[in-house]
Amino acid sequence: MSRKYLLAPGPTPIPEEARLAMARSIIHHRGPEFREVFADTRQRLAWLFETEQPVLTVTASGTGTFEAGMINFTRRDDTIICIGGGKFGERWAEVGRAYGMNVVELDVEWGKVARPEQVAEALAAHPECAMVTLTASETSTGVMHPVAEIAKVVQEQSNALFAVDAITALGVHKLPMDALGIDVMVAGSQKAFGIPPGVGFLAASERAWERAEHSDHPRYYFDLLREKKKQLGEQTAFTPGVTQIIAAQVVLKMMMEEGHDALIERHRLNAEATRAGALALGLSLLAESPSDAVSAVLLPDGLSAPDLVRIMRERYGVTIAGGHDALKPKMIRIGHIGFFERSDILTALSTLELALAELGMDVDAGAGVRAAQQVYAKAQA
Amino acid sequence: MSRKYLLAPGPTPIPEEARLAMARSIIHHRGPEFREVFADTRQRLAWLFETEQPVLTVTASGTGTFEAGMINFTRRDDTIICIGGGKFGERWAEVGRAYGMNVVELDVEWGKVARPEQVAEALAAHPECAMVTLTASETSTGVMHPVAEIAKVVQEQSNALFAVDAITALGVHKLPMDALGIDVMVAGSQKAFGIPPGVGFLAASERAWERAEHSDHPRYYFDLLREKKKQLGEQTAFTPGVTQIIAAQVVLKMMMEEGHDALIERHRLNAEATRAGALALGLSLLAESPSDAVSAVLLPDGLSAPDLVRIMRERYGVTIAGGHDALKPKMIRIGHIGFFERSDILTALSTLELALAELGMDVDAGAGVRAAQQVYAKAQA
Repeated sequence: MSRKYLLAPGPTPIPEEARLAMARSIIHHRGPEFREVFADTRQRLAWLFETEQPVLTVTASGTGTFEAGMINFTRRDDTIICIGGGKFGERWAEVGRAYGMNVVELDVEWGKVARPEQVAEALAAHPECAMVTLTASETSTGVMHPVAEIAKVVQEQSNALFAVDAITALGVHKLPMDALGIDVMVAGSQKAFGIPPGVGFLAASERAWERAEHSDHPRYYFDLLREKKKQLGEQTAFTPGVTQIIAAQVVLKMMMEEGHDALIERHRLNAEATRAGALALGLSLLAESPSDAVSAVLLPDGLSAPDLVRIMRERYGVTIAGGHDALKPKMIRIGHIGFFERSDILTALSTLELALAELGMDVDAGAGVRAAQQVYAKAQA
Repeated sequence: MSRKYLLAPGPTPIPEEARLAMARSIIHHRGPEFREVFADTRQRLAWLFETEQPVLTVTASGTGTFEAGMINFTRRDDTIICIGGGKFGERWAEVGRAYGMNVVELDVEWGKVARPEQVAEALAAHPECAMVTLTASETSTGVMHPVAEIAKVVQEQSNALFAVDAITALGVHKLPMDALGIDVMVAGSQKAFGIPPGVGFLAASERAWERAEHSDHPRYYFDLLREKKKQLGEQTAFTPGVTQIIAAQVVLKMMMEEGHDALIERHRLNAEATRAGALALGLSLLAESPSDAVSAVLLPDGLSAPDLVRIMRERYGVTIAGGHDALKPKMIRIGHIGFFERSDILTALSTLELALAELGMDVDAGAGVRAAQQVYAKAQA
């Protein structure tokens, strides 16, 4: 079986346009051709980030890029507040501790949203806080956190920078960086961009850049001040992920042709259709407030999520993701971030129905697909 | 003009086999298909590194990977000796200083080799030295340093780890890591591998791994102990450069089919032909002991290297590299690292002749090509 459907929350399928561009002869990163591609790509990235600030490219995956975003704008003796609620939110607390910072970790039950009041309380208890980190769309739980509300609290009640991991949120939910007052925002190549992993994108506010001058965390490859200086001249400090940048230009052109609102609406609709389909099949959703990037779906007792993932892959060529940690036995995650069409969602749901039946669930065949179809029909009406 | 020849010392041209593999549907890094590719690639990397140790993949370009190799096996209060002699050798001293280590920088004139006696003296003056760093093939000067001799000095006269930046040396010169007693060795995807930049490969000796347990440099993304644990299970700690790893498997298969000795001999011969061609044209070489990865060629007075690079690119579609820093006005660098054939070298030399003539040099047309042909003919005899 050669036809594969990848519906994990990253890497996401690479559009043919980008694959063909990547298959062309590679170019030198110090020549004029790359300079032109890079300059254009940087402009388009700023469009997606909705920022006046330069968007830097970091040749590392999302974790490395967000780590760079944390250590360049803080100091070793800083207190930072890291909002948990999932594997990725909690990861930033680990990064903070690895750098010896005083980390205040906000406990959020997996599946629930972080409450602005909780952030306000933590800021009141730690007025010295230098940075608040939030994973906007928590890929491990399928939750979308109230970014705008939390941004407001951070701005009004503190002098802290607000750093947002937008790795699976950008291009899916509206996240106008400057308008929301986000100080550090990070995206990853293998998510909404639909290009290979290994490159991250990062922008920072003016006041964040001012603080970067005083950071005392040791760093070299991740020194963003050096990168900023170079990248404003359409160069990079070190050899960049040339191939991913070439692909980024292609997919950003596609996004701009589609339009920002249409891009967000396509994700919203595919997510709504997926959720409607899962619910119609008698499954439940983990997320209190779901992200439009990925649906975290809980199986009824007695059904094994790893078995379901395996059947989907082996029998139908459909790759979905399993759950993390304690949720591993009973959760599946269906990704709909990236260049997905309605047909992809319908494929996922129809094969999910077959796989659930194979696992012994009493499935109302077609119910999931029908529910999704109704979502699409309603949107067209 | 659509036909392009890239003869820079990295990125290097990507073989069609790898480009086609990269153009296939991307796979999930947590699935069994990736695990299989990764396991096989790791075995093949160990073949090229000539090591019994695991070769880790780091999703970063060469600088980030070598930085990881420096900070995971040392401590903040360590003294390290960094052997200079070019842009890259000197970079590792900058990294050491960025992490607050006591860096002893060995001055080596650009174009000259580092002398083992010089290293022995430095070690005698700093018996506390914890690491010696060396860029085996110095891309900025085209010099190949005496790695084996320096390795011997480090082993015999100190307890220091020997960390070798083999980014443009591995796959070009014979560098059997274990046999030479190299403690940390780093390679980069966009060099001999001929795959896109953005992934580095790193192996470390047993005694280096023991020291890693005591490193106190702050790090998270570059924490190699975590990576080692994960990668021994054919997984990575964070989303890896999936596309580059798929391509790495393809090119490593090609290298193994060619054979290690043949791979080295092909590079040696192409380098010798390039050098013979340059000399026959009345140009000179910067390197006292040349690397077979790249030829650093000095132009006669009055000829502008940037102009030559531009003419080669604009008129003939041939990209070669310029010089760094003070050598910028009068040096060109012709890369022959990667999947180059004799035809590529002959193309470079024949267009170089035309470009030199266009710049006003009195060129004996065909002399460079003829000298290269003689090298090839002699090898076949």
